Amino acid sequence: MTGLSAHDTLVFLLSLGVLLFVARAMGEAARRLSQPVVLGELLAGICLGPTVLGRIAPHSVEFLFPSTGNVPAALHALTTLAVTLFLLVAGIEVDLSTVWRQGRASMVVSFSGIIVPFTVGAAAAWLAPDFLGRHTGADALVFTLFFATAMAISALPVIAKTLMDLNLYRTDLGMLVIAAAVFNDVAGWLVFAVVLGLMGKVAEHGGAVGWTLGLTLLFAAGTLTVFRWLVNRVLPWIQAHTSWPGGVLGFALSLALFGAAAAEWIGVHAIFGSFLVGVAIGDSRHLREQTRTTINQFVSFIFAPLFFAAIGLRLDFAARFDPVLTLLVLVVACVGKVLGCTAGARLGGLPRREAWAVGFAMNARGAMEIILGLLALRAGVIDERMFVTLVVVAILTSMVSGPAMKSILRLRRERKLSDFLVGKAFIPRLVSGLRGGVIRELIEALAESGTVDRAATERAVLAREALQPTGVGNRIALPHARVTGLERPLVALGVSHDGVDFDAPDGETAQLIFLILTPQHDDGAQVTILAEIARTFAREETRHAALAAQTYTELLAVLRAQSA
Amino acid sequence: MTGLSAHDTLVFLLSLGVLLFVARAMGEAARRLSQPVVLGELLAGICLGPTVLGRIAPHSVEFLFPSTGNVPAALHALTTLAVTLFLLVAGIEVDLSTVWRQGRASMVVSFSGIIVPFTVGAAAAWLAPDFLGRHTGADALVFTLFFATAMAISALPVIAKTLMDLNLYRTDLGMLVIAAAVFNDVAGWLVFAVVLGLMGKVAEHGGAVGWTLGLTLLFAAGTLTVFRWLVNRVLPWIQAHTSWPGGVLGFALSLALFGAAAAEWIGVHAIFGSFLVGVAIGDSRHLREQTRTTINQFVSFIFAPLFFAAIGLRLDFAARFDPVLTLLVLVVACVGKVLGCTAGARLGGLPRREAWAVGFAMNARGAMEIILGLLALRAGVIDERMFVTLVVVAILTSMVSGPAMKSILRLRRERKLSDFLVGKAFIPRLVSGLRGGVIRELIEALAESGTVDRAATERAVLAREALQPTGVGNRIALPHARVTGLERPLVALGVSHDGVDFDAPDGETAQLIFLILTPQHDDGAQVTILAEIARTFAREETRHAALAAQTYTELLAVLRAQSA
Repeated sequence: MTGLSAHDTLVFLLSLGVLLFVARAMGEAARRLSQPVVLGELLAGICLGPTVLGRIAPHSVEFLFPSTGNVPAALHALTTLAVTLFLLVAGIEVDLSTVWRQGRASMVVSFSGIIVPFTVGAAAAWLAPDFLGRHTGADALVFTLFFATAMAISALPVIAKTLMDLNLYRTDLGMLVIAAAVFNDVAGWLVFAVVLGLMGKVAEHGGAVGWTLGLTLLFAAGTLTVFRWLVNRVLPWIQAHTSWPGGVLGFALSLALFGAAAAEWIGVHAIFGSFLVGVAIGDSRHLREQTRTTINQFVSFIFAPLFFAAIGLRLDFAARFDPVLTLLVLVVACVGKVLGCTAGARLGGLPRREAWAVGFAMNARGAMEIILGLLALRAGVIDERMFVTLVVVAILTSMVSGPAMKSILRLRRERKLSDFLVGKAFIPRLVSGLRGGVIRELIEALAESGTVDRAATERAVLAREALQPTGVGNRIALPHARVTGLERPLVALGVSHDGVDFDAPDGETAQLIFLILTPQHDDGAQVTILAEIARTFAREETRHAALAAQTYTELLAVLRAQSA
Repeated sequence: MTGLSAHDTLVFLLSLGVLLFVARAMGEAARRLSQPVVLGELLAGICLGPTVLGRIAPHSVEFLFPSTGNVPAALHALTTLAVTLFLLVAGIEVDLSTVWRQGRASMVVSFSGIIVPFTVGAAAAWLAPDFLGRHTGADALVFTLFFATAMAISALPVIAKTLMDLNLYRTDLGMLVIAAAVFNDVAGWLVFAVVLGLMGKVAEHGGAVGWTLGLTLLFAAGTLTVFRWLVNRVLPWIQAHTSWPGGVLGFALSLALFGAAAAEWIGVHAIFGSFLVGVAIGDSRHLREQTRTTINQFVSFIFAPLFFAAIGLRLDFAARFDPVLTLLVLVVACVGKVLGCTAGARLGGLPRREAWAVGFAMNARGAMEIILGLLALRAGVIDERMFVTLVVVAILTSMVSGPAMKSILRLRRERKLSDFLVGKAFIPRLVSGLRGGVIRELIEALAESGTVDRAATERAVLAREALQPTGVGNRIALPHARVTGLERPLVALGVSHDGVDFDAPDGETAQLIFLILTPQHDDGAQVTILAEIARTFAREETRHAALAAQTYTELLAVLRAQSA
């Protein structure tokens, strides 16, 4: 067996480590700035590749990501595996039954959301192929079809993620969007399979384009019917008779690899196969939530960052960036998709505001557009300038999607306990052992970091306490008050290991004491915060972990792990 | 970038899929036969490689696992990544504090368990190097040191797994063994690093052997002190400020890759680095159980099978198997290790029976021996005959370990509900709606598949029921009786969607009715089964899933998922 030398091994491991670390770090930074994680991951690759690091220190780029030898082949194989598994997860997230359940409305959104941008895209590509970055020598029809598909595709994973972030995933509107996006995805990939066939790529089976087309349809139909039925029959047997969850994990992943290999054999890209296998597996009612979660976490947090970061290594984005082209494609993409979907939603009977929200939700292109562009680049259909444009459009449409829906639907972000907890008002060891003393300590801590009127606040809290004691059992007490002049809710937490009497119904003293101050006018805040504390600290394990926290950071870690 | 062609991609994905599928399937088969999973995984590779499939259909082996081009490099890179991550997991499982807590006894076991087999091994290798498979031209001292190390090493992951399977992991004896094994592992890898240095392998840093040695010690010491302290400080910050569990996952994996690259640079194998990083990470009290589980599951069920199966692809095991050599090495390995550890345990003050159990526990070589052998084979220290011998010895010692401990300590396997549930006595829809009728249906179902005296059993169950009703609340009823002449406990389960009155304290009717028959003499069985049903069905989700089960297989899947 041809093996990697010790030097190859060193470079391979180091480059993977660097890619993963930087991609995860920049992905997290993007998330903190309320941007899509994929944006940070792509930027990581751009920073590590020829665009940035290559200009500063070309030798280190050539050392870490060499262009010849075994290492690039190994990295390419690994990123191919990564994207194959990423599409498996995207497929698993699809819920076929919602497509049917949403009925007419989702069908109309789907059709209109495909046909309008496809037509607009096809017209633009047919009229100005050279300006739109057709690769020299690429067939006009193939390029037109590709560009039209690129305009019509949407990104199910990004859309699903956005809906979840906005708490809309399980609503009727959310399900309508998901149903339309599922149909959109499947149709988009089928059309793209045809495009690849038309590119004259000689498939492994050796047959002509017609064969590829027929086999693709047969493969899609077979996977979604017979194969899906089989998987649903076999899954319970695997769960019953193999170690858990290893049996299902290995089974799902090897099926995805077989599907991917089959798709490659047919002559379409591997990811089409793993996506369909994912849909078939995810549709089984026997697939357990934990299996789904394990695959999802490992793929989303390890494989996906590696794949998206590796894209940035491929070319010099700065040199290839064309602002005019990007603006033009962005306009074509958004107009076609948003108008098409919004019109479809109106036809389907949705009110105007919701119809526009559907339009912007479906407009996110995300990972799918990038993968599509990469395949077209490799196949010689588009040039690097157009590829960079597609990547930028994919990122921009994904970034706009969430905020646009939020403002159209006038949603307010769900407020979380950690938004109101004041870092400096976490007291890991309260001095006082009495109710009044503890309340004073907590008010003092809050007053140090904000504009809290000590005396007035203390009066208000003690008055509330006198009305009815705030020990709620489970060794938790929640003294609180509404305070005039406060701009936003503030929460302080004090820990008393000996316990302080707050007259709890269960007769126990309180160890975790939350002081909650809310603005006079903000009626919802108090209820929201009280409910979240109750929910978060219902488990004894969480209370123990909070009692053991020594710093505010450790406390945040406890809250984060619970709300995940 | 040099990329994989479409054909390369197809072969790479297909070979991964086949390797994973066959390895998982044969791993599960091994588990069912109460053998170590790694045995099945290795056999999978042997079946797919030159040993078996290569004799039957050499062309398919050459197609799936080609020996030239990009695919073998890609597979090699992936299996290197796999074993690096596997050692990360092995490191995370190590609990450094137990090493100190077990004090003198574990130290004595460790020392004696290293020095005795090392001496025996060194003597054997020095006396008969050629017979023991020294590679032509390999240095006598290097070979002696290697063989001695191979005899002295033990396999922490296999040992930990065996102790968990026997329910001994959290006992004093278990912790003693783990502590000794940890020390053994770290010392073994350090010695092996020296051996690799002596092999004259030119390290990336370009320095002499002395440098490699010094750097190795420095690296080990630094990772286990400064680095460990740093990780413990940084982890809470990551959990508090990044998405969960993605932040920790990405962080842990990229650290492992950096550690592996550093070890390669120093001149020892990558896995030494990821193992030490794993120890440092696993030692942090901030690492959450769920993060550990996600990494562990993905690595144990996906990466580890790929790595171990790929070993079998390397050579023709049948042609290289030498029974005399294998027997000899097996004797040297077992005598040195078992006697050394047992003597140490006796010196440390353990009773005779427990001391022998420690000896056999530490005797498992498992994955470590195979990895060591692979490195030596690649470095040209041993020949293929000796490598095959080491693999066989590793497997045999791992297989013997569990059963030997079980019989020495006179343990009985923990009995599980699923051992007693009778497949044909699962009634997804009970006909009767009355207590007596339901009991009769269940007895009837049991009687069909065994030697149950219908009339006597019914009398016994009804008599017990008259004494005190067996509705226990949560919509569960547990009619039961002891039956003379029964050889082993039998359990039948009937589901009544309308509910049957069993006089439960909560006033609800029962929907899940377990009929439990135990032998007259078996006092423990009844209590064990009642307790397990109570524990398993305490969660409402489980009860719902059991109510929805249509077949016995689906019911088993529910039980399996709960007990995992």
